[in-house]
Amino acid sequence: MKLLTNARILTMDHALQEIESGWLALEGTGIVALGADPVPEAYLARAETVEDMGGDLIMPGMVNPHCHMPMTLFRGLGEDVDDRLYRYILPMERALVTADVTEVGARLAALEMIRGGVTCVADMYYFEDRIGAVLDQAGMRGVIGQTLADFDAPDHGSWDEGFALVEALAERYADHPRIMAAPAPHAPYSTGVALMGRVAEWSEAHMGVPIQMHLAETTAELDWAAAQGSSTVELTDRAGLLRPELVAAHVMYPSESDMDLMAERGVKVSHNARSNGKAGRGIAPVTALRARGIPVGLATDGPMSGNTLDLFSQFAPATMFQKIASGTRKALPCVDVIRMATIEGAATLGLSHRTGSLEPGKEADLIRISLSDPRLHPIYDIYSMLTFATLPSDVTATMVAGEWLMTDRTCLRLDAEKALADALQVASRFKAKIVEIDRKALSE
Amino acid sequence: MKLLTNARILTMDHALQEIESGWLALEGTGIVALGADPVPEAYLARAETVEDMGGDLIMPGMVNPHCHMPMTLFRGLGEDVDDRLYRYILPMERALVTADVTEVGARLAALEMIRGGVTCVADMYYFEDRIGAVLDQAGMRGVIGQTLADFDAPDHGSWDEGFALVEALAERYADHPRIMAAPAPHAPYSTGVALMGRVAEWSEAHMGVPIQMHLAETTAELDWAAAQGSSTVELTDRAGLLRPELVAAHVMYPSESDMDLMAERGVKVSHNARSNGKAGRGIAPVTALRARGIPVGLATDGPMSGNTLDLFSQFAPATMFQKIASGTRKALPCVDVIRMATIEGAATLGLSHRTGSLEPGKEADLIRISLSDPRLHPIYDIYSMLTFATLPSDVTATMVAGEWLMTDRTCLRLDAEKALADALQVASRFKAKIVEIDRKALSE
Repeated sequence: MKLLTNARILTMDHALQEIESGWLALEGTGIVALGADPVPEAYLARAETVEDMGGDLIMPGMVNPHCHMPMTLFRGLGEDVDDRLYRYILPMERALVTADVTEVGARLAALEMIRGGVTCVADMYYFEDRIGAVLDQAGMRGVIGQTLADFDAPDHGSWDEGFALVEALAERYADHPRIMAAPAPHAPYSTGVALMGRVAEWSEAHMGVPIQMHLAETTAELDWAAAQGSSTVELTDRAGLLRPELVAAHVMYPSESDMDLMAERGVKVSHNARSNGKAGRGIAPVTALRARGIPVGLATDGPMSGNTLDLFSQFAPATMFQKIASGTRKALPCVDVIRMATIEGAATLGLSHRTGSLEPGKEADLIRISLSDPRLHPIYDIYSMLTFATLPSDVTATMVAGEWLMTDRTCLRLDAEKALADALQVASRFKAKIVEIDRKALSE
Repeated sequence: MKLLTNARILTMDHALQEIESGWLALEGTGIVALGADPVPEAYLARAETVEDMGGDLIMPGMVNPHCHMPMTLFRGLGEDVDDRLYRYILPMERALVTADVTEVGARLAALEMIRGGVTCVADMYYFEDRIGAVLDQAGMRGVIGQTLADFDAPDHGSWDEGFALVEALAERYADHPRIMAAPAPHAPYSTGVALMGRVAEWSEAHMGVPIQMHLAETTAELDWAAAQGSSTVELTDRAGLLRPELVAAHVMYPSESDMDLMAERGVKVSHNARSNGKAGRGIAPVTALRARGIPVGLATDGPMSGNTLDLFSQFAPATMFQKIASGTRKALPCVDVIRMATIEGAATLGLSHRTGSLEPGKEADLIRISLSDPRLHPIYDIYSMLTFATLPSDVTATMVAGEWLMTDRTCLRLDAEKALADALQVASRFKAKIVEIDRKALSE
């Protein structure tokens, strides 16, 4: 048994229990007990190691339910450019994204997430076997979502090839303690009703495995659905994919009846505040979704869209957007922001029985936050401090399944220097390609 | 002469010159020269000290043109509560804010700004002689704005008493190399046309000294003006206060003709993105103001409103708000965000000839940013990196007027531990008062 002592504990359990000064007892991958000081003698007697947290904050590791990890390599590329998707991303993905490149980008992403307090991530990209390998090596918890769409992908051609990748992943990770594999249909308009139906069948046979899909993200998507006399949410439902396993990303433009239907079907949502804001797409109806009981997790989206992979940078935008949309300071209070980053995020991935709060019986997925910076004080409200003042750099240690992945800001499983050097080498090839694209555009 | 070598330099000069690897020569309080490597022999021969910047980014220190520094002590208090101003702030200010308390709060604020890369601040509060003492001690550049209003203030009663404070400050700081003193009328509705007129007269006699005032900030203010058959901007103009010295804070709800009038009169604006967003007040028309040539600086507002006192935390909200309001990714590009935090912010305070960019002849107000964090890479665009990925904790050193105020994240003039301890002591008294207020509210 391992004891963490002298900790300020934010449990994020149902009662939102806060402990000013307390301890946690860990055994194997899980939490055995926790409480306020003093530490019971029985635990002290049984402890093999006792770690003094120095009065730092211990809270649940954060859950990032929507990401495209390898896109770290595109971070900041084509910033402020409206046609960046067609001008840069798609041509560069087709020309340059190989399995090796994907792994390099994903490793940089894992490093950043561990350093920023994210312990669980749902990824959606190509070559997801490589993402799985990175998460496995990094020690993180997560879902690897193999992108499926009606367009040519860097890692497969036909639907059958795509599903073969999914099946291979599912088999490989069937017994993995931290990683689940799943198909990730790109979006209704790019996947189509027939392929969504096939994913729904897969989901029916693999209940509880989260399926990510971009949904109601763009106005073009609404037009596509309207041309078929329907909403994009209704089309998804017609395909059978509006189900409890679905983690719909973005959900910018649902109608009231779309949201009712989503709630009825038990759909989950990932809210990508910075990505939405940067794209100028307006404000997602997070308050209305949550008012219907739909769990909404805070997500980073890919780092080309939102640039950073910690959730702290999503907190202030997420609540400010809701406050602006509703005209009141009361909208989406800080405590709900932190809920969405932890226990509610875990619920979007069907993992709230295992992670997202500090409770006996759950996995020991937690982070340690230094409270030493003057920027954090005074602390009248810990949720306000976390939402508006805390930075990813305040996270000093990160634990998943009882194992420290970082202590004193040093990553223990990943080689941070090598991960960055590899990424910079790939980026130099990307930069040459950008020059080529821009030169071609000029000459046209 | 002092040389800074091996630096990546972002000048923020008119040509937006970037130097991949270069040097700066400093003498006394100012910049003598700068350029790309190699360092000219003549400078090497004359240098008394040579400091290797290790490839780090050197950029202008940031300018924060609107702050209420002592309100660090209220940070996070009454978060998400609609009536926080009347419920908490005003009663607590009247009961608890003394000159000593003000100084304690301001010192914590100065510490946070220096640690976050802000080298120049315009403050607006009470007991501004104490803020002046803090800025003087801390080594920062700034404007101390003595709040004047039609309501009882913690530090003066009648207008004459208020102006006596302003005159005493102005005399005391007349020859200070870094600090200017000014009156700061609270807002048109709370100051009134007569008192605004008196401030305008003062300004006419003290040309070039920036005057802060909240303007067009709330809908209640618009109603107040409408009841007089006018807009709040027009009433300010009628009082003679719509002048080049005016740094109007917020400017949430100006009409097109208000903005035209502001441009014609040479008024400046401070944009407080986080403060506005947290208050749910909508999105300020920053793009429309800047399109008229009105300089707009990025500001923190007081830390009860915006929580943090660095400008990095304003960057993403500022550009996202404009992108959302206009529906395009192109709105307020990153380069303009960084302009607003540096040279344009300096222009709002009439200080762009002295600070805000790195150019020979200007004061050596600069910051050093470590590029070592994986979160910052790859760097395709330095302005994007600064806007979306850089944190105040990446600032490792801060210089004002040729003097390092912080190196290796250690503040050299301020005692960080004592500043925090003093603030926490005051906060414990504040906490007792909050309990009293909440108990009283419950019993009513």
